[in-house]
Amino acid sequence: MNLEFISNLMAIEVMAPNDYVGFTFFIGYMAMFAASVFFFFEMNSVSTKWRKSLLISALITGIAAVHYFYMRDYYLATGENPTFFRYVDWILTVPLMCVEFYLLTVLAGAKRSLLYKLIGASLWMLVAGYIGEAFNVDGSTAHSVKWGVISTIGYVYILYTAWFGEVAKLAENASENIKCGVRTLAWFVLVGWAIYPIGYMCMDGGWLNTALGWGSENVDLFYNIADAINKIGFGLVVYNIAITESAKKA
Amino acid sequence: MNLEFISNLMAIEVMAPNDYVGFTFFIGYMAMFAASVFFFFEMNSVSTKWRKSLLISALITGIAAVHYFYMRDYYLATGENPTFFRYVDWILTVPLMCVEFYLLTVLAGAKRSLLYKLIGASLWMLVAGYIGEAFNVDGSTAHSVKWGVISTIGYVYILYTAWFGEVAKLAENASENIKCGVRTLAWFVLVGWAIYPIGYMCMDGGWLNTALGWGSENVDLFYNIADAINKIGFGLVVYNIAITESAKKA
Repeated sequence: MNLEFISNLMAIEVMAPNDYVGFTFFIGYMAMFAASVFFFFEMNSVSTKWRKSLLISALITGIAAVHYFYMRDYYLATGENPTFFRYVDWILTVPLMCVEFYLLTVLAGAKRSLLYKLIGASLWMLVAGYIGEAFNVDGSTAHSVKWGVISTIGYVYILYTAWFGEVAKLAENASENIKCGVRTLAWFVLVGWAIYPIGYMCMDGGWLNTALGWGSENVDLFYNIADAINKIGFGLVVYNIAITESAKKA
Repeated sequence: MNLEFISNLMAIEVMAPNDYVGFTFFIGYMAMFAASVFFFFEMNSVSTKWRKSLLISALITGIAAVHYFYMRDYYLATGENPTFFRYVDWILTVPLMCVEFYLLTVLAGAKRSLLYKLIGASLWMLVAGYIGEAFNVDGSTAHSVKWGVISTIGYVYILYTAWFGEVAKLAENASENIKCGVRTLAWFVLVGWAIYPIGYMCMDGGWLNTALGWGSENVDLFYNIADAINKIGFGLVVYNIAITESAKKA
């Protein structure tokens, strides 16, 4: 624990017990860090061809841990949404989640083009989301909705690929275990990823903000919950597949 | 995480959403770090004679991660181009990229003299670039162009060697996989390395700066993009060759 942590604490004097955003930032940071250590160590418990999937899971949660460290302190120091660091993180971790999908289907014959299409769709989704969120300086509903809709196109593409498209079709030819795992990841994309738009709509000018009066601090509350579920959950699903498949081969 | 990070944040209060240079510094740092961890761990997935190539890739991205950490904070604290640290980094990492080329061709009989010629050309390129950039105190176009041209001689030498010279000829005798990989690296030198002169010409007095009005902050925007593509991309190409060749031997 470093000096700046204490200086931040001194700036705000005491942690407010109802600072749920701060609470989830602290939980998020430590959960990501612990998950990363777990995946790194468990690389030794799976067979060689599954090690890379665990390594990617460890990198996703490890990268997120570093950025949660920034975001938590930025939030404590300024009280603002750390949108900048949020998207720095997602630009790296969301494409890596697409790599996880690809690695699961590559054993069933996926081509490299699938990986590029998934990464392209995820970058589309993120760039549009960043424009919608970071450049919405005057709390404009029109701006927020427009870029939210554009972003959603990328999301729907990934959702379609995971449920009915190339990923789903390739998983058909894989073992029952991989097929079931890919379906679970598709559920994560459908349900877990759907938490992000809820956070997005809490921004100033967002629908939940104007219609229901949910303040913009809730943006990060939802993002923190969604990140924990998706990044760690995604990794645990892949880990379960890897452990089961490795036991078969032994 | 150090004290200066938070003091920088406090100095700028909030991160500007359109600070693309800062954005790419943060992404660059984390991407280099993650790539380095990936290459270190994946050393265990390739056969013994390919491990050294992966180790060099891990060192290139690892060295870059440390310097991106400096450059990022230097940029945040001063708003200036971190030219000093940029060249400290390149003086180490660019010759190591030449070592990568050499290691690929040594299996096809490359002599040590090839390595020295490539390193010599890369140092020529970097020393001239540093003089052109760091000592261009008054934004002189003549100074910028002169040293830019001198630097380009070293670049053209490496480009020629990779496409038509010793490296290309040696790759002819190697396996299809290595031949194809060396050609891919030659494309990186032709296209990926060509992004650096674009950044160079954004300096005060540079052609893109005076003719098109591209500000000198874009120097680092282009350098950050080019470094991510070339250092990580180079490493991934070598990694693919190593994985494919290792599978053959097994």
